[in-house]
Amino acid sequence: IGPVIEMALEAKLIAGGDLSRHVSVSGEDEIGDLGHSINQLTRRIKGNMEELKSFGERTKLINIEIHKRVLALSSLLQIGENISASAQMEDVMTLIVEKIVQVMDSGYAMLFLPKPRAESILESNIAHNVTNEKLSQLEIKIGEGILGRAVAEDEVIYADSKAKFSKEVSRFKEDWGIKNFATFSIISHNKPVGMLLVGNDLEDFEFGNDDLELIKVFAKQAVIAYESEELTKRIKQSTIKDDLTNLYNEKYIIARLDEEIKRAAFYQRPCSYILFDVD
Amino acid sequence: IGPVIEMALEAKLIAGGDLSRHVSVSGEDEIGDLGHSINQLTRRIKGNMEELKSFGERTKLINIEIHKRVLALSSLLQIGENISASAQMEDVMTLIVEKIVQVMDSGYAMLFLPKPRAESILESNIAHNVTNEKLSQLEIKIGEGILGRAVAEDEVIYADSKAKFSKEVSRFKEDWGIKNFATFSIISHNKPVGMLLVGNDLEDFEFGNDDLELIKVFAKQAVIAYESEELTKRIKQSTIKDDLTNLYNEKYIIARLDEEIKRAAFYQRPCSYILFDVD
Repeated sequence: IGPVIEMALEAKLIAGGDLSRHVSVSGEDEIGDLGHSINQLTRRIKGNMEELKSFGERTKLINIEIHKRVLALSSLLQIGENISASAQMEDVMTLIVEKIVQVMDSGYAMLFLPKPRAESILESNIAHNVTNEKLSQLEIKIGEGILGRAVAEDEVIYADSKAKFSKEVSRFKEDWGIKNFATFSIISHNKPVGMLLVGNDLEDFEFGNDDLELIKVFAKQAVIAYESEELTKRIKQSTIKDDLTNLYNEKYIIARLDEEIKRAAFYQRPCSYILFDVD
Repeated sequence: IGPVIEMALEAKLIAGGDLSRHVSVSGEDEIGDLGHSINQLTRRIKGNMEELKSFGERTKLINIEIHKRVLALSSLLQIGENISASAQMEDVMTLIVEKIVQVMDSGYAMLFLPKPRAESILESNIAHNVTNEKLSQLEIKIGEGILGRAVAEDEVIYADSKAKFSKEVSRFKEDWGIKNFATFSIISHNKPVGMLLVGNDLEDFEFGNDDLELIKVFAKQAVIAYESEELTKRIKQSTIKDDLTNLYNEKYIIARLDEEIKRAAFYQRPCSYILFDVD
């Protein structure tokens, strides 16, 4: 009965939670069988525990992924609401960079748009969480330099701890003191008009395909916001009548008045202008 | 040694996979301890198996959820690309209803937009997967009937197997022979201009908050597509100069010519019009 006592002690420790133990089996009798069975049950528990652990880890990762997408979708709803409410383009763009940083759960985002009176140069007045003072001053000349060519050719550039990138990208990283980044061009009617740069300084970070796809969706909303603003500007420029009263607006009257004064001078005729003020 | 033989037999069956068994324990000696330990190990395996099963089920559900959102995001990217490429509004709207049906993985979607020359009536020329012949003829008079009031007041209406809905909704369901449905208004600058109806005939179906949120994102893209089309139309109407040549266009010349002819008649002067055709 000696081996049974030993086995009982060992089995108690295993059942108590110490799965590293196993009972020693000697002989091919019933006691040997019992030992085998106990060891088999122990192995099974160990296997289950490992499976449960990996399930837990996977569930955690999937939850992060799903949270990212839920956040992305609700952000896109909010951005869409702003675009459709004809919010100021700057406000929409600000929302876009903020939301990207939130969805990526780290780092910063910058939106480069044409400089006033220097359309071929893109500057970033709209950014979120940029702590790198030098980077915030970065200007992109369309067609020149690594980002300038990327925007001109509608190419995605990215660098992280896994991606293989060119020497030029690595020099760019060094020059501007940045670590992981991805850029997306803002192209309107085949014309490059901006760039979205998303980055962070995390160690061992990798942009997943999903991340790049997500950022692309946001970049596309920036294109839509840009174009909506352009259309509104064009309407303002080309409109000659007041929307509400359907009367000619000031811009048109001044242009026509110019013509009429020239005509009156040419024909040597008087020219009068009557202004009614109806309150 | 009798009980040990019995225990060994039982333990073998358990280790072989029959977790419904357990060894009978008698006495408080080592053999009793051994039996307790084996039963404890068995219970633990049973518990683990249940946990693994529920993990598996949960993972399956989460995967469906994540798939839905991945699909929604890539659909939104495609819709955004179409809007920013100034695709025909009808094409964008067609894409929207198709993608909603795909994301919801069942049923149909209809988009109601103003009838030409009868703006207060919405009809659905753009729909996907509508097999209900009667439903496809449905027209919504803004402000009247259950859908008409919903669109006028920007209210979401939905009915499924769980939601409590009014008698009016239940009558609407009967009248049109539909089961589960949700509607979202298309509101542009505070003006109701359309409605998105998403439905299916599944038993025991429930619109989750996530589903409603998802459909809302698509409805918002429909608003943006609608507004983008409106802006383009307004530009066409208000433009007086040719984009390419910056010369006045035909519409403007005809309007001005009218004025000039009246002026010439009034002053009894000749009026000439010279047309250069430069090729």
